[in-house]
Amino acid sequence: MDWERFEKQKDFILEIDKEKNILRQTHLSGGGRRENDAEHAWHMAVMVWLLREYANEPLDLAKTMMMVLIHDVVEIDAGDTYAYDAAGKATAHDREEKAAERLFGLLPEDQGEELRALWEEFEEYETPEARFAHTMDNFQPMLLNDSNGGGDWKEHGIRRSQTEKRNEKTGTGSREIWEYMKTILDANVARGSLKDE
Amino acid sequence: MDWERFEKQKDFILEIDKEKNILRQTHLSGGGRRENDAEHAWHMAVMVWLLREYANEPLDLAKTMMMVLIHDVVEIDAGDTYAYDAAGKATAHDREEKAAERLFGLLPEDQGEELRALWEEFEEYETPEARFAHTMDNFQPMLLNDSNGGGDWKEHGIRRSQTEKRNEKTGTGSREIWEYMKTILDANVARGSLKDE
Repeated sequence: MDWERFEKQKDFILEIDKEKNILRQTHLSGGGRRENDAEHAWHMAVMVWLLREYANEPLDLAKTMMMVLIHDVVEIDAGDTYAYDAAGKATAHDREEKAAERLFGLLPEDQGEELRALWEEFEEYETPEARFAHTMDNFQPMLLNDSNGGGDWKEHGIRRSQTEKRNEKTGTGSREIWEYMKTILDANVARGSLKDE
Repeated sequence: MDWERFEKQKDFILEIDKEKNILRQTHLSGGGRRENDAEHAWHMAVMVWLLREYANEPLDLAKTMMMVLIHDVVEIDAGDTYAYDAAGKATAHDREEKAAERLFGLLPEDQGEELRALWEEFEEYETPEARFAHTMDNFQPMLLNDSNGGGDWKEHGIRRSQTEKRNEKTGTGSREIWEYMKTILDANVARGSLKDE
């Protein structure tokens, strides 16, 4: 065994433990506490496996699962930016690039480059795996939020047009899941959790 | 789209959200709060991908990742049983079988059977994927615990012989990782966190 290589892998594994303390705006189903990034990624990876039959294009399954498992790792340094925080979104990219440099740099060079490429592929949103991963990234919090009566939207005064904008490419990962998600938006407009305009 | 099928998948996805509230005995690195099952499974799945080069035998990667992602799902009904709780372990199996029946039964029949088989394969510990998944299941909390000075062992007054017993098959998943784990046990005996006998 190459102990130097193994120590680098171990250091990365311990470092990403911090993702369990990065809180999102979404609340757990049942109206509990806020969800953290590690829980969100776990849920998404299970969903990739269960819902892959609805992907518009064939997927490399292990690659898509690993992509969702690490897609938020940069938030360890950069923090979570709420989907509807326009000012935060504008500066997030630079912070996330720096974080990627540091975090993936902990790994042996080959794996660091591989994971960085996987993260960039997610960000660039141009492959079947990246498109489906984004569908999961939007569907997972919507499911939790809907199960809580749309409380997260209500708390932030979100408008339906904002959710449509946020999901403008969701159907490129899965037309069928996006059709379903629109029924969730309709229901939440109807019960007054999402503002209609 | 077969909406009935999709609704079952969605019900399962929402139900397993509860795994985020099942607390383990392990504490997060840095001595924080206790870890939950979803976080533990997320960490293990990333580790499967990063450390697969140390598996004794070739692995089906997506299968191993899904196995670790869902290996604790039965604890939603059965609760977490601490690795060194002999009385709890004795009754855990029956509770977990009932939980598997209910939880995997939420899914469409084909996926329910597939996930149940994957969970049983993990429990039976007889395939390369199950062996490596168990290596991760033991290595992940050991890494966190070691990073906290072995506090979890100290709190429960654990003896080195108990950790050896718990890990008697860990080397069948990865001889190399088990070699490394033994150095962690040595170090924690040396600093008095693990009782020597």
